[in-house]
Amino acid sequence: MSTNRMEAFSDAVIAIAITVMVLELPTPHDTTWHALREAWPVLLSYVLSFVILGIYWNNHHHMLQATARVTGPILWANLHLLFWLSLVPFTTAWMGENAFAPVPTAAYGIVLLAAAVAYYVLQSMIVRDQGAGSVVAAAVGRDLKGKLSPVLYVIGIGLSFLSSRAAVAVFAAVAIIWLIPDRRIERGLAAGRAGERGE
Amino acid sequence: MSTNRMEAFSDAVIAIAITVMVLELPTPHDTTWHALREAWPVLLSYVLSFVILGIYWNNHHHMLQATARVTGPILWANLHLLFWLSLVPFTTAWMGENAFAPVPTAAYGIVLLAAAVAYYVLQSMIVRDQGAGSVVAAAVGRDLKGKLSPVLYVIGIGLSFLSSRAAVAVFAAVAIIWLIPDRRIERGLAAGRAGERGE
Amino acid sequence: MSTNRMEAFSDAVIAIAITVMVLELPTPHDTTWHALREAWPVLLSYVLSFVILGIYWNNHHHMLQATARVTGPILWANLHLLFWLSLVPFTTAWMGENAFAPVPTAAYGIVLLAAAVAYYVLQSMIVRDQGAGSVVAAAVGRDLKGKLSPVLYVIGIGLSFLSSRAAVAVFAAVAIIWLIPDRRIERGLAAGRAGERGE
Amino acid sequence: MSTNRMEAFSDAVIAIAITVMVLELPTPHDTTWHALREAWPVLLSYVLSFVILGIYWNNHHHMLQATARVTGPILWANLHLLFWLSLVPFTTAWMGENAFAPVPTAAYGIVLLAAAVAYYVLQSMIVRDQGAGSVVAAAVGRDLKGKLSPVLYVIGIGLSFLSSRAAVAVFAAVAIIWLIPDRRIERGLAAGRAGERGE
Repeated sequence: MSTNRMEAFSDAVIAIAITVMVLELPTPHDTTWHALREAWPVLLSYVLSFVILGIYWNNHHHMLQATARVTGPILWANLHLLFWLSLVPFTTAWMGENAFAPVPTAAYGIVLLAAAVAYYVLQSMIVRDQGAGSVVAAAVGRDLKGKLSPVLYVIGIGLSFLSSRAAVAVFAAVAIIWLIPDRRIERGLAAGRAGERGE
Repeated sequence: MSTNRMEAFSDAVIAIAITVMVLELPTPHDTTWHALREAWPVLLSYVLSFVILGIYWNNHHHMLQATARVTGPILWANLHLLFWLSLVPFTTAWMGENAFAPVPTAAYGIVLLAAAVAYYVLQSMIVRDQGAGSVVAAAVGRDLKGKLSPVLYVIGIGLSFLSSRAAVAVFAAVAIIWLIPDRRIERGLAAGRAGERGE
Repeated sequence: MSTNRMEAFSDAVIAIAITVMVLELPTPHDTTWHALREAWPVLLSYVLSFVILGIYWNNHHHMLQATARVTGPILWANLHLLFWLSLVPFTTAWMGENAFAPVPTAAYGIVLLAAAVAYYVLQSMIVRDQGAGSVVAAAVGRDLKGKLSPVLYVIGIGLSFLSSRAAVAVFAAVAIIWLIPDRRIERGLAAGRAGERGE
Repeated sequence: MSTNRMEAFSDAVIAIAITVMVLELPTPHDTTWHALREAWPVLLSYVLSFVILGIYWNNHHHMLQATARVTGPILWANLHLLFWLSLVPFTTAWMGENAFAPVPTAAYGIVLLAAAVAYYVLQSMIVRDQGAGSVVAAAVGRDLKGKLSPVLYVIGIGLSFLSSRAAVAVFAAVAIIWLIPDRRIERGLAAGRAGERGE
């Protein structure tokens, strides 16, 4: 089976999830800048989720470009990922409407963590199916970001109960890590390790 | 006429149905885990409907891959299937928001039953059009699952008035049957029949 | 410019319009069959609009299959059609929620009339662009249905103020005319004319 | 990377944004023409946003037809544009429901301004990537409309606080400028400059 229809379906689900979040933005009660400013947790949550879903679309796109064929289990691993991504609008609304209250913020992080794990599972299944010498295995590489993200999400979930703003900052940091091209990160990590060794 | 645009349209409708269900998830009133736990019938209904729509997308995809051409009646049989699938978010919300009350649970089962019948009609029309020796006829095979599902749905609808949890369990069982690869089921059924014959 | 992306965009808009109508279906207040039965104007409106949008998708699909190229004005005529089709969920909800009250029913008919005119304009522009000897001109033919529909819609709009049920019946009749394959209709009309001439 | 999947994703987001705006149209409270007439700010806002999003889809389509390849930064510039376009339904609803109150009207203009800037950035990145002698550079040309639009949006945003109707008229004027084919505009501007020089 070719990857075309799976790509098209994933695109549709991600495009819809990204767009319907706007429907969840409650129209401000008032017609003042103040009313708009009061909606900032809702708007900020929207921006964050838009960027995160955009990153997933982008990475998913690149991974499937390097994928030659799709098997039944890969199809289901993909649906599993889409399931968690489809829940993002729900937790975004809950977190935004309650101005980053601890539990909704933790729930937001849990859905992101589950999506990250689902992406990792999908990626591993594709790599296993295509073989270690395949294009997709080379494209995935050491996958530092993919391994770092779940750890940061767990930290963010824990932080939700201490300072939900710090938790949101951690979730945003994961997005920023993904936005930075790979080479720069690896160089930064290498420099960091060199620093730790006192070089 | 080629199957391309019919596939694309079906994908879009199923992707939208699967995603807009999230819009129907009411944001919990409170910001506690308790509030989220109280939403469990809504969330469970969502998970079940997501899996069921995913199975339909998957099977629809495979069937059309084996289909060479689409006629006018096949186009309408497909729209008929999409009609019932588009009602799934409606009955999902009604059932979830009322914590599996008998009538909404039965209505949920009726829509699933109608979708299963619509799928069967679509499949039969395609097989008849392509001929008994066609790829699609071979792919459909004896279609044990397709024949078993409506029977189970009828049982589930009846159970709704005795124990709606049992009814939901039956609906979930149908989904699980479809998730299991065909060969294992046929072997299981063969073993079952052997057992009945006292072998 | 090829017709591909215009087709894809039109499919997406029609698929979304057809699916989001379900979001406008209000969940019944109660968990009884009675509550569902009380929702019948809403459900009937949904069924009618689903069939009408399905017919538009189907005809649009066939017309564009026979269309070789798309010009700027054709693109805008297509967006004009999509505009009126996108309003169908709005008038469907207004008519359904008010149990076929006269003004909402007339408004529903006006949107259908405008969509029919927009389709006629789009079709005429394509035929003019491709020439009278083109495939699309042959496919459109005498276009009896296309000429009859606006007349019936005007009658239905007028009827809304006398008997809104009769108006809805007329709107449904237009849909049924389109569902019947062309040859049968032409034969029927020919027989009718023969009858009028006293043959 | 080819432009196909980026086109498909953009189409999906624009198609959804254009269609879900209808979901934000509140069903009139009453069943009279008067109730519909009272909804005119909402309906007018919808028409304006529909036309504006239609223009974006149209221009985006033409630009990508002339684009040979897509780079990582272009993908993100495109997502940036889609972000602002996805906010159009939000500001449309706020402006419409408050009958063109000053602040929501200005906010509507700000989102349009941001989208225009995002489009300009995307276009500049594509032109830079493809080179000054490329098809896309020739297609963009002097881009009078692209340079005029942000200026008019700024004027409209300022006008919102004096006369919000005038502001909406300016926003509509930008749309009309884009609907007029390029050649006519350039001729008009040339004639205007000739007039200024007293020829």
